[in-house]
Amino acid sequence: MKFFNDLADFSVSEIKELITLATKLNNHPEPRALEGKILSLLFLSPSLRTLISFQSAMARLGGGTFVVSPEMSIHGLESRSGIVMDGTAAEHIREAVPVIASYGDAIGIRAAAKGESLDDDLADREFSELTSLIETPYINMESAINHPCQSLADWKTLDDLKLSVHNKLVLSWTWHPNPLPFAVPAATLHMAALRGMDVTVLRPEGYALPDVVMEKARQAASISGGSVTESDDTKSTMKDCQVIYASSWASAQYYGNRRAEDEIKPDLRQWCIDEPWFNQAADNCRFMHCLPVRRGVAVADRILDGPRSVVIAEAKNRMLVQMALLHKMLSNS
Amino acid sequence: MKFFNDLADFSVSEIKELITLATKLNNHPEPRALEGKILSLLFLSPSLRTLISFQSAMARLGGGTFVVSPEMSIHGLESRSGIVMDGTAAEHIREAVPVIASYGDAIGIRAAAKGESLDDDLADREFSELTSLIETPYINMESAINHPCQSLADWKTLDDLKLSVHNKLVLSWTWHPNPLPFAVPAATLHMAALRGMDVTVLRPEGYALPDVVMEKARQAASISGGSVTESDDTKSTMKDCQVIYASSWASAQYYGNRRAEDEIKPDLRQWCIDEPWFNQAADNCRFMHCLPVRRGVAVADRILDGPRSVVIAEAKNRMLVQMALLHKMLSNS
Amino acid sequence: MKFFNDLADFSVSEIKELITLATKLNNHPEPRALEGKILSLLFLSPSLRTLISFQSAMARLGGGTFVVSPEMSIHGLESRSGIVMDGTAAEHIREAVPVIASYGDAIGIRAAAKGESLDDDLADREFSELTSLIETPYINMESAINHPCQSLADWKTLDDLKLSVHNKLVLSWTWHPNPLPFAVPAATLHMAALRGMDVTVLRPEGYALPDVVMEKARQAASISGGSVTESDDTKSTMKDCQVIYASSWASAQYYGNRRAEDEIKPDLRQWCIDEPWFNQAADNCRFMHCLPVRRGVAVADRILDGPRSVVIAEAKNRMLVQMALLHKMLSNS
Repeated sequence: MKFFNDLADFSVSEIKELITLATKLNNHPEPRALEGKILSLLFLSPSLRTLISFQSAMARLGGGTFVVSPEMSIHGLESRSGIVMDGTAAEHIREAVPVIASYGDAIGIRAAAKGESLDDDLADREFSELTSLIETPYINMESAINHPCQSLADWKTLDDLKLSVHNKLVLSWTWHPNPLPFAVPAATLHMAALRGMDVTVLRPEGYALPDVVMEKARQAASISGGSVTESDDTKSTMKDCQVIYASSWASAQYYGNRRAEDEIKPDLRQWCIDEPWFNQAADNCRFMHCLPVRRGVAVADRILDGPRSVVIAEAKNRMLVQMALLHKMLSNS
Repeated sequence: MKFFNDLADFSVSEIKELITLATKLNNHPEPRALEGKILSLLFLSPSLRTLISFQSAMARLGGGTFVVSPEMSIHGLESRSGIVMDGTAAEHIREAVPVIASYGDAIGIRAAAKGESLDDDLADREFSELTSLIETPYINMESAINHPCQSLADWKTLDDLKLSVHNKLVLSWTWHPNPLPFAVPAATLHMAALRGMDVTVLRPEGYALPDVVMEKARQAASISGGSVTESDDTKSTMKDCQVIYASSWASAQYYGNRRAEDEIKPDLRQWCIDEPWFNQAADNCRFMHCLPVRRGVAVADRILDGPRSVVIAEAKNRMLVQMALLHKMLSNS
Repeated sequence: MKFFNDLADFSVSEIKELITLATKLNNHPEPRALEGKILSLLFLSPSLRTLISFQSAMARLGGGTFVVSPEMSIHGLESRSGIVMDGTAAEHIREAVPVIASYGDAIGIRAAAKGESLDDDLADREFSELTSLIETPYINMESAINHPCQSLADWKTLDDLKLSVHNKLVLSWTWHPNPLPFAVPAATLHMAALRGMDVTVLRPEGYALPDVVMEKARQAASISGGSVTESDDTKSTMKDCQVIYASSWASAQYYGNRRAEDEIKPDLRQWCIDEPWFNQAADNCRFMHCLPVRRGVAVADRILDGPRSVVIAEAKNRMLVQMALLHKMLSNS
């Protein structure tokens, strides 16, 4: 495997194989599988779970990691082309990224959405530019529009919950004080559709996901036999729902213009998931979230602390599926 | 071993067994004993020695570590209950801590005293709250009122010095510009008492250790055959002293009220340990300190640079006893 | 090997042996050679390449590392002698450095030039003071006046380019907004001279390297059969040049007085290496630089992006020669 950038690059059977391998490595550890192998971890945006789940996954297989973030270079990294570097930045990504990659057998890169240009972010321009600079295998650790490791972990979590094809998943927008990237909702929607589920995107007016995101998911659903719809009506959408996946994202129409978005947001504080949302949901309807989650803002404490929540298991699956991914990418066997 | 939180939870023979194992692992390395095992290191307060001695200890046994500090999460971690998280913190410890723990086979946690409420700190409320969130084995890497890894290392250092029961140890307060936690003096006093030594707490008026701390040590002494006394007279206390353990701590009566404490402190600059203190001490009376130590403030340079000081050996023992601890906690053998 | 501080401490055959070992370990990995061994990494000045190339090198051989930087200690490390530490720094290097060293089997130390006293920096006073505090083997990861790991890597890069004795290397000063240390140019000049090359230092008036630096290189050349000259004329110097090594350094005459140096610098912006420099150079004349490099300031983009540049290979060689160095220093075989 030369890269892991998008679940759409893999067949459903290849995805299932990775999840089977994750379970196998958890039950039968292989602490020498990657001995002498190194994973470079480049974070152009901050991370907690992704960082430590990759460090743990690699170490469990006997391999090593090192971490780079821009502030480690003197006064940060320059990324603009053709610039005369007489300001503060002492190093350009055109040197830094190939060097960092050359010290590892594979590289994980996080470059979250800049939130300035919708077109650039939907096209994943920054991530593509970074990967064009390297020759080693690479892993997308969250880009402007994708988060395939999260989706692979979520697929496993849905398996663990015994949820399969034609089960109903609601991807629900929730309130958040800041405009957040489309990476997680876009990846989640596509993953659930590819898995064959009946997915509804539940969001208030003004928060429809971009057409290109919806269309990619619909294509996945058409192959897998699932379905993709959208709605702004909580009550009807939550009926018979078996799992609600909470996320927050920016308004596409105000992308890069926070002031304009802030003007329409104050009315949406009721988009905080709480027990009444589940009145007509399926028995044992579960609550998923990629974390970090803001308590009392995106979801009520009693949901997170109660039996519906699987967020801790979901996060643990990050480490397990990444072990499988690294094993597949780097082991000699 | 499911947790290592307090020497008081262990019998003297269990402690001696750990120290024997530390010496054994130093002489006969076992670089694969913990292969594939991971120790999570969560630092809610800063650390130098504890961090690197645990990283080294784990790596020497073939295991891996990863490190988390609050600033790694976006805008820090929230810890208050029932709060609506619409401020800067994007993540709550109720999610972060279980996730961090789930990526390791054991977790080390440092949560030093907040220095606000004496009752809360004496009851180790924050540390207890954190460990209630996890299911993996855990290690106290310094809490509000305990520092068992330091005490285990100090026990070994006292063994290395051939000091045994009924030798006289003075735990002396020293000057420090800031009010420091009770963790080290409380743990040291209890350790020396449990070891069966004759311990005197030497401190100026106003700096008596809290009753609960003194009482716990007295109980340990009553079992081991040691003794615990206190004094504010340097001359008589230092007579025949075989080891002086320097530390600094806040005034319990002004706890959380630095301004009030500052008013009584300016007269105490003479509490800087120097050669005249040792006039009537035993030959070769040794100087111990957990580090970091302020030169010329807590102790004179000539003591630290001279033959009395064992502070470097003491710090090295941190790594050695922690190797034993991790081996006991995590090895399959 | 007890220390690696200066190529001058080794014979040419010992250096060649290290480079042969680097190539061997790259072709035939030894992922267990250093199992259970620990390298302490102490950075008193910032680093990107050096940090991650050592982390990777050690992990590829099965060993572990931990990293210390001054900001990890509470309010930094004090280094002055005989001081009363009642300010912000809570720890002195006289305790910190021996403790840090004691947790590893070897220690790498970076303490770049302070740029205040030319005499102190040329005598490498800070680095010598640090290494006088430790007993473990140590590696110079860049000191005020040396960078032997860079030079060892560069030697290998010159080998990889099939450049050998009597080939012409130009060490050229380039424009930089800040006065930089002599470590890289001094180490490079000495390395090329020791390798037996014909080296010319090309620099504008006012930027001659200090006499002691030139003299050390001339002595190396006299043994190896190489030569060392200097010039301020680009055109004649670049004639038949086979490799240009770009670097920037402070003006020795204004050392520690940036304002005075700034007054003479504005005229020197043409010292940015570009294609016309190579008009009379040898075919395929190569461009080397230790990185980080400022694009459009020290060198034109088309040089860095074109076939002359070997900077990425040069940086990768850092990791490879450091693997050899660590293997030589720490393996039991």
